[in-house]
Amino acid sequence: MKKMIIASTSTVHGSGYLEYLLPTLKDFFTEVKTILFIPYARPGGISYDDYTKVVEKAFQKINIDVQGIHQFTKPKEAIQNAEGIFTGGGNTFELVNQLYKKEVLSSLKEVLEAGTPYLGTSAGSNICGITMMNTNDMPIVYPPSFTTLGCIPFNINAHYLDPIEGSTHMGETRATRIKEYHVFNEIPVLGLREGSWLEVKRNTIILKGNYTARLFQPNKNPVELESGREVLV
Amino acid sequence: MKKMIIASTSTVHGSGYLEYLLPTLKDFFTEVKTILFIPYARPGGISYDDYTKVVEKAFQKINIDVQGIHQFTKPKEAIQNAEGIFTGGGNTFELVNQLYKKEVLSSLKEVLEAGTPYLGTSAGSNICGITMMNTNDMPIVYPPSFTTLGCIPFNINAHYLDPIEGSTHMGETRATRIKEYHVFNEIPVLGLREGSWLEVKRNTIILKGNYTARLFQPNKNPVELESGREVLV
Repeated sequence: MKKMIIASTSTVHGSGYLEYLLPTLKDFFTEVKTILFIPYARPGGISYDDYTKVVEKAFQKINIDVQGIHQFTKPKEAIQNAEGIFTGGGNTFELVNQLYKKEVLSSLKEVLEAGTPYLGTSAGSNICGITMMNTNDMPIVYPPSFTTLGCIPFNINAHYLDPIEGSTHMGETRATRIKEYHVFNEIPVLGLREGSWLEVKRNTIILKGNYTARLFQPNKNPVELESGREVLV
Repeated sequence: MKKMIIASTSTVHGSGYLEYLLPTLKDFFTEVKTILFIPYARPGGISYDDYTKVVEKAFQKINIDVQGIHQFTKPKEAIQNAEGIFTGGGNTFELVNQLYKKEVLSSLKEVLEAGTPYLGTSAGSNICGITMMNTNDMPIVYPPSFTTLGCIPFNINAHYLDPIEGSTHMGETRATRIKEYHVFNEIPVLGLREGSWLEVKRNTIILKGNYTARLFQPNKNPVELESGREVLV
């Protein structure tokens, strides 16, 4: 039985790391004393140790200890034995690259399907979808595949941004990029705005937070999904 | 002897397709009667035919005919026989994917090194670098490699954007993404603003257009390069 929180971002503007999610996480991880943290996405290229310290500090506030997966000699066993798991944001290409290199992607999927509580933010949420093909990140490394966990039946576009009215910039909007994706792929894509998250229990997926989310499907107009409702694709 | 124009964008705000570049292109392609167009990047997922029509219309204004590479049964020969070549923008992943699938990447490099005049815009400029790892595009397909033409000794970040002051969005800035890139890679990256382009003659690379460009190198502070000056890395 799956039990996951899949959040658009770790941090909302004007608030500390994970701060907006802490009340939710306190309930969610109620039986968890120590979380296994996966720091592979390395935001800004920081070290695994430094990243783990940031996460430790946040989880201290709800009395949960944190161990970085890099502190274990056998990362696969660390995943299999974890009470709860958190994968933080950063670069999705490097995150997926390391999950393949360390041969832990399938173990991670197994424990999540079996019910180990999981939190993902940003890149850590992208990997919950079927592929990482809707990341916003720069392809700074070449992972062996774009296939990810597939714990939900669609892909995530984290930090979803509406087109900026009056912008003079000619780069593609997020919506255009996802439309291009659907020329080549059938998988639905959920644009999750910063401050939104999904709560997954078994196979029920509920949108949470203060915002609607934008669902993109091939050959259909995108639709806005209401917070508090089940996400059905 | 290389002869290339590597432009950040096809279109600047408030102006028609390629319009801002046409005076430059008229001189640049002075001996060219027909251009071979590579439409593989498919902006917004439009068809090769539709994309080629857009390009035809623009080049008509300077009396140059356009043929799409997809109109040839042997794309490699089309490249080898071309008087001039233009690769348009769109999705860099799909562009590189098709260049590999059609086995034309090495032929393209050969003719460019030998002096066939080349215009690239956006994705068509990204492929002039050593790798496509500094594209802003969404990874909507999985190309067999990120290695590109390497006609210049650095990578391109097209549509370069300065951080937006006062933004409340938590997604990474372009500069942060390139900094992350340099944690894993040594290749310098040139951030080309919309309206800027590079003119390559033999191995001399001059920045053109109204803007400075931002050069990122590992373990150094980024620097602004002046228009009209040689780009030395």
